[in-house]
Amino acid sequence: MKKVAIIMGSDSDLPIVQKGVDVLKNFGVPYEVHVYSAHRTPDEAGIFASKAEENGFGVLIAAAGMAAHLAGAIAARTTLPVIGIPCKSSVLDGMDALLSTVQMPSGVPVATVAINGATNAALLAVQILALADSELNSKLKAKKESDRLKALEKDAKISAEI
Amino acid sequence: MKKVAIIMGSDSDLPIVQKGVDVLKNFGVPYEVHVYSAHRTPDEAGIFASKAEENGFGVLIAAAGMAAHLAGAIAARTTLPVIGIPCKSSVLDGMDALLSTVQMPSGVPVATVAINGATNAALLAVQILALADSELNSKLKAKKESDRLKALEKDAKISAEI
Amino acid sequence: MKKVAIIMGSDSDLPIVQKGVDVLKNFGVPYEVHVYSAHRTPDEAGIFASKAEENGFGVLIAAAGMAAHLAGAIAARTTLPVIGIPCKSSVLDGMDALLSTVQMPSGVPVATVAINGATNAALLAVQILALADSELNSKLKAKKESDRLKALEKDAKISAEI
Amino acid sequence: MKKVAIIMGSDSDLPIVQKGVDVLKNFGVPYEVHVYSAHRTPDEAGIFASKAEENGFGVLIAAAGMAAHLAGAIAARTTLPVIGIPCKSSVLDGMDALLSTVQMPSGVPVATVAINGATNAALLAVQILALADSELNSKLKAKKESDRLKALEKDAKISAEI
Amino acid sequence: MKKVAIIMGSDSDLPIVQKGVDVLKNFGVPYEVHVYSAHRTPDEAGIFASKAEENGFGVLIAAAGMAAHLAGAIAARTTLPVIGIPCKSSVLDGMDALLSTVQMPSGVPVATVAINGATNAALLAVQILALADSELNSKLKAKKESDRLKALEKDAKISAEI
Amino acid sequence: MKKVAIIMGSDSDLPIVQKGVDVLKNFGVPYEVHVYSAHRTPDEAGIFASKAEENGFGVLIAAAGMAAHLAGAIAARTTLPVIGIPCKSSVLDGMDALLSTVQMPSGVPVATVAINGATNAALLAVQILALADSELNSKLKAKKESDRLKALEKDAKISAEI
Amino acid sequence: MKKVAIIMGSDSDLPIVQKGVDVLKNFGVPYEVHVYSAHRTPDEAGIFASKAEENGFGVLIAAAGMAAHLAGAIAARTTLPVIGIPCKSSVLDGMDALLSTVQMPSGVPVATVAINGATNAALLAVQILALADSELNSKLKAKKESDRLKALEKDAKISAEI
Amino acid sequence: MKKVAIIMGSDSDLPIVQKGVDVLKNFGVPYEVHVYSAHRTPDEAGIFASKAEENGFGVLIAAAGMAAHLAGAIAARTTLPVIGIPCKSSVLDGMDALLSTVQMPSGVPVATVAINGATNAALLAVQILALADSELNSKLKAKKESDRLKALEKDAKISAEI
Repeated sequence: MKKVAIIMGSDSDLPIVQKGVDVLKNFGVPYEVHVYSAHRTPDEAGIFASKAEENGFGVLIAAAGMAAHLAGAIAARTTLPVIGIPCKSSVLDGMDALLSTVQMPSGVPVATVAINGATNAALLAVQILALADSELNSKLKAKKESDRLKALEKDAKISAEI
Repeated sequence: MKKVAIIMGSDSDLPIVQKGVDVLKNFGVPYEVHVYSAHRTPDEAGIFASKAEENGFGVLIAAAGMAAHLAGAIAARTTLPVIGIPCKSSVLDGMDALLSTVQMPSGVPVATVAINGATNAALLAVQILALADSELNSKLKAKKESDRLKALEKDAKISAEI
Repeated sequence: MKKVAIIMGSDSDLPIVQKGVDVLKNFGVPYEVHVYSAHRTPDEAGIFASKAEENGFGVLIAAAGMAAHLAGAIAARTTLPVIGIPCKSSVLDGMDALLSTVQMPSGVPVATVAINGATNAALLAVQILALADSELNSKLKAKKESDRLKALEKDAKISAEI
Repeated sequence: MKKVAIIMGSDSDLPIVQKGVDVLKNFGVPYEVHVYSAHRTPDEAGIFASKAEENGFGVLIAAAGMAAHLAGAIAARTTLPVIGIPCKSSVLDGMDALLSTVQMPSGVPVATVAINGATNAALLAVQILALADSELNSKLKAKKESDRLKALEKDAKISAEI
Repeated sequence: MKKVAIIMGSDSDLPIVQKGVDVLKNFGVPYEVHVYSAHRTPDEAGIFASKAEENGFGVLIAAAGMAAHLAGAIAARTTLPVIGIPCKSSVLDGMDALLSTVQMPSGVPVATVAINGATNAALLAVQILALADSELNSKLKAKKESDRLKALEKDAKISAEI
Repeated sequence: MKKVAIIMGSDSDLPIVQKGVDVLKNFGVPYEVHVYSAHRTPDEAGIFASKAEENGFGVLIAAAGMAAHLAGAIAARTTLPVIGIPCKSSVLDGMDALLSTVQMPSGVPVATVAINGATNAALLAVQILALADSELNSKLKAKKESDRLKALEKDAKISAEI
Repeated sequence: MKKVAIIMGSDSDLPIVQKGVDVLKNFGVPYEVHVYSAHRTPDEAGIFASKAEENGFGVLIAAAGMAAHLAGAIAARTTLPVIGIPCKSSVLDGMDALLSTVQMPSGVPVATVAINGATNAALLAVQILALADSELNSKLKAKKESDRLKALEKDAKISAEI
Repeated sequence: MKKVAIIMGSDSDLPIVQKGVDVLKNFGVPYEVHVYSAHRTPDEAGIFASKAEENGFGVLIAAAGMAAHLAGAIAARTTLPVIGIPCKSSVLDGMDALLSTVQMPSGVPVATVAINGATNAALLAVQILALADSELNSKLKAKKESDRLKALEKDAKISAEI
């Protein structure tokens, strides 16, 4: 199976990113986690992106805050699908990261998820890999059904109690 | 090859969506175009999404403006990757559609592109399908190189003239 | 008397929604509380909305955060008046939920109240039901007068003390 | 049947409001249209609101731009349901009017629709009146079905052509 | 000397308003403090505004949060200068109150100060009254000079220490 | 009678400012119009502000766009009331000018009106001067009544026609 | 004298950038103009930045719209001062470009000017180079004085005419 | 070597500014720190700016919150490069200060860094001074390499552990 890379711009993004790592682990998807900054280690980030396909990656996830260039910098150097997680930092509630991640110019898409949305970024990666992996596909369907049942249990509980 | 669906919430979104259709055509990716509204034809949208996988689709693209629920409504009913295009409408410059599309809750990701970013939505779909299609992969790489060369030509021209 | 439904997208919205429940209880309006998600249990939400009228509901209130599609998804499947409560979540102070709830396209209105405005959502439901219920109408007028008197007491106290 | 009032803060809002008037006309709902300003004719607006119930109104719709106080000023003086239409003016794309209309304090709800959303304001009024009027209810259902069919026709046309 | 009124929409605004009261006290300007709500006690607010001039007031200050209509409602009923203080509430950081207060239509001005800016609201009132009161004018100049000297002391301290 | 100064940061603001000039002219209030920039002619702006009181001015109005520092720079050098008009420029719809004008720190108030609100700025200046001028006061009341009657005429016309 | 580079992300930014080129020409500062995209030609942009210092550049100006990563990508690869011009594109009035340019993380500064502010970007570059060039310094002072005089002429004209 | 001035509008900005002071200290760049307010001590700020060049300064850094005029007021009176730090205050997360600092009109540039970005402001000042100081230039390159290595260490650690 192709691997997923989760790259964060700073190790301070780890608490957010961890939720995505957990999703990949739960689905049994092989992954690597890296700290590459579009601004502090641009060459390393670029080389990683350029070689990601030949190194066995299928999807790249990039998480960054503020002027969040990481996902775009990765996407500039690969034709693999790149998923961007805009991270909330100390001001502006992540709006700066969201616009920096999603408003990519024509030719270089970044699949952007919600601010701090690492769980969904990982799920999206799994969905992409599942297109060619029926076992993963079954697991996704099982999780979706499980989420549904949990929500219905909450409905049963709350509608009875209140 | 798996098909791509481009679904728009209203036929007024067609001028935006058309750019994405052109991309798919250029890459030789089979596609269908539909008008399904999360609000006016929710059942048809839901049924389309629910059956998209068995009907041979690999990626679903949903374009909508204002309170743009379409991509989320589609994503709620499939485990296929869903790409959302927030469309600018007459007020707020598409910010309403962007937040309505990207801020999805955990469990149901929508891969969001830029406001009116239909070209990138289609490219992202091609990137996803290319993971299992080496010919498509080659075409993507050729387009990326072609984009690069065109940009360099512009540099050559402008840096010489000004 | 027709019933009011208060539907929340996630049980984490309960602390907000509870204030609306209390209003309905105080006015003696029959109600049900449910947890239905436009994204995790879209079919259940849809069926509930489709059958709400025949099941004796007169007004439906939907509370959700982030890309808050719930009220719109409900409104898509009923001609009952639907009231939307945009809920504040961990980022953006509820602006995402507000725009996702209020910016509905022509044909499918959602009566939107303030961010986290569950009290007003419930009062609005009571006002609607009171059009055909003179006792409820009297209670509304009594509450309005009581609110007025409480405000005047505060004025008397503060204008005297400061 | 109870009447609907559409009140605009300025006659410059008439082009927006007209769409709502047309909806009421199509549904055969009796209505009055007024120009009352929360700032230029506050007493007349207040008196109209105070006497609206005894004068046979069931729902009041208020449309205003900028610091749009009209709907709130109306709602302060009646227990009838009040619907607010935030109107776009020359700057800020109606965001000022939206926040001025929707962010009402507890106790005085305004049912807010989209910026410039006069069609939906009128539809919401019809939905409210239809709770006690089965003929109106049937018309609403017919319109919803008609909207659905029109959308499906557009899908048929576009999915065939593109 | 003419009096200043400080009117707050809710007694929860008192901590903000208190700073303005202190300014008036320090300048020896006679004042009254009231709790009048544009929505809960609109008639009392309106009557107060209508009679403020004949009751000896020269400037009216109105503080409110959310859809802050109070200053506008006051200004609608007097030709006295009205100063608006937009108050921060639990969401949106006071942006809703700012736009609701400052974006007044032509004909009915509200002199708006910063979000939570009660000190400046009171100073502005003093500046207005000082136009016809040379003693007050002298006190204003003395305060401005005192503020200047305090700032210079801070400069002296910090520039020496760091 | 004390004079009013209308100062604009750039002659490109003249079309906006002109409406304010017309108001002053109609009320017979003596005025001067100046082009002083907080950034291009800061000393001239500062000297004008410092000497405004002794030169017979009672109220200073400052209009500027973008990072609109003019009103604040004027207010820093006088204890006269200063009114700020945030002007819309080519981007951001005047939000930059609004925040730059209204968010003044404690000690230096600027009475801010709506974006491009020159009419209200001038009216506010007249209201301030009218505190010590009964003739001006009468004119203000007459204008308010005239505005009211014009609005009522519009109501009569529109309510009859539609 | 050290050269200034003006780099634009797309040739569509040329009309904005041209004003900056004119400033450099007027000051007699040597310059080069390039089209390098952080996303379409990231390697060329990176190499240019990496070698800019040894190639005789003193200041680098980067202009880009949307998710404007260009200035940051340049700054990541040089210790020369980098000036960023956020360009307005078809939506959001340049707010996306502003936040993407200015919100740089610690360690990699970008000197950001106003949206579309190419004139100021070039002036800033001249100011930086003038620190080591007394002739340039004199020209800057002459321009500043000339700007001042032009503004005063406008004041003289408008204050006389109106 | 030319000196750097760090000027803050209020001593409450010191915790933010301190990080910039530390950077200058680490690079051995001579500096002064001052508290000058564009509004409370405008003349002292102006005189400081006017004489900064002859007093041996090469770069001026100005930090202020809210309607942050300080950097612009400094830039109005010097042709030295001026760097602006928008400071977050109690509301709006620094957006008011950012727009007040960056949106400068043509002719008077302010090199704006991120909200609260004092570290980058100081680094930018060092980059500017390093153009004429090869030792400083070497230190900058060493710091950039050190930042790179620290980031790579974090990558090594996290990629191994997770």
